Amino acid sequence: MNDGTTSGPRGSRPAWEPAPLRQVRLAGGLLGERQRTVLDRSIDQQYAQCRDTGRIDALRLAWKPGSELPKPHIFWDSDLAKWIESAAYALTIEPNPALEARVDEVVRLLAGSQQPDGYLNSHYSAVEPDKRFTNLRDCHELYCAGHLVEAAVAYHEATGKREMLDVMCRYVDCIDRTFGPGPGKRRGYDGHEEIELALVRLWKTTGDARHLALAKHFIDVRGTRPYYFDVVARARGKAVADDGGPRYDYFQAHLPVREQATVEGHAVRAMYLFRGAADVAAATGDEELLQTCRRAFANVVDRRMYVTGGVGSTRHGERFTYDFDLPNESAYAETCAAIALALFARSMTNIERDGRYADAMERALYNGVLSGMSLGGTRYFYANSLAADPRWHEFEGGFPARRQEWFGCACCPPNLARFLASLGTCAYSVGDGELAVNLYAPSEFTFDVGGSRVTVRQETSYPWEGRVVVQVGASAPARWTMRLRVPGWCEGATARVDGREPRVRRGYAAITRTWRDGDRVVLDLPMPVRRVHADPRVRHDAGRVALTRGPLVYCLEEADNGRDLNAISLPQASAIRARHERTLFGGVTTLTAEAVREKPFPGGELYRDRGPETRRAKITAVPYYAWANRGDGEMTVWIRQSR
Amino acid sequence: MNDGTTSGPRGSRPAWEPAPLRQVRLAGGLLGERQRTVLDRSIDQQYAQCRDTGRIDALRLAWKPGSELPKPHIFWDSDLAKWIESAAYALTIEPNPALEARVDEVVRLLAGSQQPDGYLNSHYSAVEPDKRFTNLRDCHELYCAGHLVEAAVAYHEATGKREMLDVMCRYVDCIDRTFGPGPGKRRGYDGHEEIELALVRLWKTTGDARHLALAKHFIDVRGTRPYYFDVVARARGKAVADDGGPRYDYFQAHLPVREQATVEGHAVRAMYLFRGAADVAAATGDEELLQTCRRAFANVVDRRMYVTGGVGSTRHGERFTYDFDLPNESAYAETCAAIALALFARSMTNIERDGRYADAMERALYNGVLSGMSLGGTRYFYANSLAADPRWHEFEGGFPARRQEWFGCACCPPNLARFLASLGTCAYSVGDGELAVNLYAPSEFTFDVGGSRVTVRQETSYPWEGRVVVQVGASAPARWTMRLRVPGWCEGATARVDGREPRVRRGYAAITRTWRDGDRVVLDLPMPVRRVHADPRVRHDAGRVALTRGPLVYCLEEADNGRDLNAISLPQASAIRARHERTLFGGVTTLTAEAVREKPFPGGELYRDRGPETRRAKITAVPYYAWANRGDGEMTVWIRQSR
Repeated sequence: MNDGTTSGPRGSRPAWEPAPLRQVRLAGGLLGERQRTVLDRSIDQQYAQCRDTGRIDALRLAWKPGSELPKPHIFWDSDLAKWIESAAYALTIEPNPALEARVDEVVRLLAGSQQPDGYLNSHYSAVEPDKRFTNLRDCHELYCAGHLVEAAVAYHEATGKREMLDVMCRYVDCIDRTFGPGPGKRRGYDGHEEIELALVRLWKTTGDARHLALAKHFIDVRGTRPYYFDVVARARGKAVADDGGPRYDYFQAHLPVREQATVEGHAVRAMYLFRGAADVAAATGDEELLQTCRRAFANVVDRRMYVTGGVGSTRHGERFTYDFDLPNESAYAETCAAIALALFARSMTNIERDGRYADAMERALYNGVLSGMSLGGTRYFYANSLAADPRWHEFEGGFPARRQEWFGCACCPPNLARFLASLGTCAYSVGDGELAVNLYAPSEFTFDVGGSRVTVRQETSYPWEGRVVVQVGASAPARWTMRLRVPGWCEGATARVDGREPRVRRGYAAITRTWRDGDRVVLDLPMPVRRVHADPRVRHDAGRVALTRGPLVYCLEEADNGRDLNAISLPQASAIRARHERTLFGGVTTLTAEAVREKPFPGGELYRDRGPETRRAKITAVPYYAWANRGDGEMTVWIRQSR
Repeated sequence: MNDGTTSGPRGSRPAWEPAPLRQVRLAGGLLGERQRTVLDRSIDQQYAQCRDTGRIDALRLAWKPGSELPKPHIFWDSDLAKWIESAAYALTIEPNPALEARVDEVVRLLAGSQQPDGYLNSHYSAVEPDKRFTNLRDCHELYCAGHLVEAAVAYHEATGKREMLDVMCRYVDCIDRTFGPGPGKRRGYDGHEEIELALVRLWKTTGDARHLALAKHFIDVRGTRPYYFDVVARARGKAVADDGGPRYDYFQAHLPVREQATVEGHAVRAMYLFRGAADVAAATGDEELLQTCRRAFANVVDRRMYVTGGVGSTRHGERFTYDFDLPNESAYAETCAAIALALFARSMTNIERDGRYADAMERALYNGVLSGMSLGGTRYFYANSLAADPRWHEFEGGFPARRQEWFGCACCPPNLARFLASLGTCAYSVGDGELAVNLYAPSEFTFDVGGSRVTVRQETSYPWEGRVVVQVGASAPARWTMRLRVPGWCEGATARVDGREPRVRRGYAAITRTWRDGDRVVLDLPMPVRRVHADPRVRHDAGRVALTRGPLVYCLEEADNGRDLNAISLPQASAIRARHERTLFGGVTTLTAEAVREKPFPGGELYRDRGPETRRAKITAVPYYAWANRGDGEMTVWIRQSR
């Protein structure tokens, strides 16, 4: 079973849709446990943070100059929006009256803060009511709106309640009256993309063509001349050159989107932009725009993505830099950016029905996303380094090698919560008579196909073991296609159903048959430990390997291996042993090997002609996502390889 | 000939003094040419920069609020002071009436800006006259004063003119009335050390015991409780915690100086502090303070110094970080800090009469200092990376991989000029009936000993070849000791005079005899290419070697080796060939070797299980000091070594 095909234009092939969250249950296993932690702990902890920092009270619009109240920040609505969205997913998964009451209260406050013309923003309405929509470049106004729209859609889907959805439709009406291609409207767009993808979500719920049209407009107007940000700067009486701040490419506004051949600028913004563009392309059948998204995606995964699925190589601008520039210690790899890549990949998976996209989604999820949250679910990384020395990180400032409970700019914690709560939508896709299993995890998914109500249930220890048993329950026999993803990292995968072996195309083993109750597929994904090399143009990984097993990237931590991790090298011939440890981190598979450790120079000199003495040393690697859960210490993903 | 001795307490052994600059002539050779370039080009170019940026006009104190004149910056006097100092050294070396007239004009302006009570500072006198001496922590007031004192001493020594010296003595009187241990005086000290070492220089010229006492006071009061910076902050009505800004260790004010076991904080400040402390210790016979300096020096060279002699591992605070933290790409290694280390080492060499200190001086000079200036002498590095990718440096901001003509904070260019103009003082030391040759370069030094006027003349192609012929001219026979430094990097050195071979002690071959006119010593310092390893705790150098030959550290540049320098590895067995190239960079020895280059993955994937294919590749290394003189490109000092 192997996959020699490559993706081409999709023509008129219909797309999949993400599985409706309500129809998926994750139960146990690594992903299920992470989701459980979010539902049981993170959502409450984040509510408390939002409350204690004034983000909720800000909706009362009580702040005044000279007031003792904390001044509402331009980001705050988005934090609250993502908290609502995560609560909505939690309520979709299981009832929780206390949580629902809490959301209802916040929604009431939101509704109360809405201005007569529909405008809604706790910063501008209280602090600078005369400045609204005057600085889209820097002030995240439509970004906040977009997150509120996503939350409204999610809460409507979770509860059937319309209040927040109606509030947000009125706000979108206000935005639509202000911005767009029509006469008298401004040709602006937000410096931080989000509204585009949110409007497509809204359109899918409302069916209102204006919502999709406005999303498409925001994509199309971006980066056109004259630059909107210049027009606005001039209106504020500033010469463009004096406006200062980041360059256009930081905002993905240096070129019209369809002309952007590479992903540039702030990583989260870029990924939100291309996800929105992909969703617009799928909704409108815009092949040119879709081709732009394919190209952007390839630029990311083939040139600018860490092995963990993290993106954004520098803290300076939290941004993409240039091809093959992937420093490990100073990696930014913001948690939000890994989430954004996973969600862009989810869209592309469903549009292209191609496992290469789901491969990137899985890579980001298991590594650069999960690493963002402590095992306890209440501490978070904003930046996800691939090598850490806590002392170095301390001297660099603002870049700690330790998870924090919250941040002044707190985008990552609620983004983690909403993403992990909605994992079911990534795990399965449906459409065109097909069910695709994208992620393997103990779970079940129920859907209707050909007059049959079907439940597929996965039994698996994935990602610790590669065997997945898919059990089909069906109310009636029906002919449809099950697609089981064969990860790009996997060689020698086998799937068997009734003794037959399906073919793999575009990253999925496809089984088309009349499925009956009790059918059973056994998928085996061999999971040897792999030494992964980076293209030699990645200068920081030269001569090094990353240990991986299945979808997991591993790292060395000081807790297991002592300090000076770069003094360790792993001989090419060393066998690496995988062993499941039930007690560590709630149960993980660790890797051990015989390695070589260079000894400090005994004479106390810093430099000398003779190379260091060495000794043998056993090393232990743990999954990257679990690092920094045992106190401060060094960590490295890329390990020096020696002969 | 070898050196098995180690340094111990020096007891009452008298110290050397730096050779008086007037008695040294550098002529040709690498150091002589670099000094020639400073004399012929840099001093004029820097004068023009000082003039065009308003640094000279600032002395007219004409700036007023609302004025169109550039507002005098708190650093400006120090830039001008270092320019005067470099001009003074140029005038010491050779007459230059136009330059002298230019300095006289600046001195007149300086004198005119002096306040009735002696105070002198172009920023405070014009901009905030009521704020003088209120924020020593941040505002560089005594730092500027120190540089002006150094300039005044140098100009007096160069010309015999007293005007600037008198002006500065009056200013020092004003400082002495304000600060000190006595009743009614403030117990302050400057956030940026410099005044301490300058006062020792002034004392050597004036013989005024108050000058030395004030220097000693500033050393002794530093870091004592209650912290002076806190006292001042409270006087300004600020709680200490609210004062913000850097921590005490940034200013070397976290502990009394004698209790500082490691070098901490801003690298230039730390090196200026310990140089000043060493000079005070030598002048006062303070063995405890000297021991502090020995310990600090050892901490630098054994734990915190780049192989280039650069110090300061991070741009964040331009500071020392922690032992073995020496990242290459983000190295700060400010040019001023390498100069400061060299000058600290000059002091320690003379006090300790031990070649280990001169080794560090030579290392810094030939590498981390010379790299700060373009071959043309008019462009400068502030930070001296040990690995560069111009695209990375651009994204990091404020850290270019290209020399600049000037800087807003322009400390480095005039520091380079004054240091290179005064190199003669580093090359030779005298005292206690000894002449020490610390640096090898075509040069001569004239001094009086035992009733004889002696001239020693070096004939050498050092650092390109290791043979040095020292020719002695003497007006009469006299018995004295010639000490020829045997660098720490050198094995198998031989020195011969009349067929006899002197013994090496404390890094110098000592020849005590009755020297006669025409005597001749032939020193041979074998200069094989060396592969230098760093202690394995230097995590960024693990598995790598730096190529060195003699005192020079080499690097690979893109101009010779193409891009992706980290895709290159140098097999352990590869022979490295040194060849002198007369046309490159005005004549340098380059190194070539057969190496291995890893090829990009042909399939376009970023990560794969199989390691890269390789091909053989010839590499060429050039002296580090000469890098970035052929356009923008990658550079690396530390080269991956393979079997």
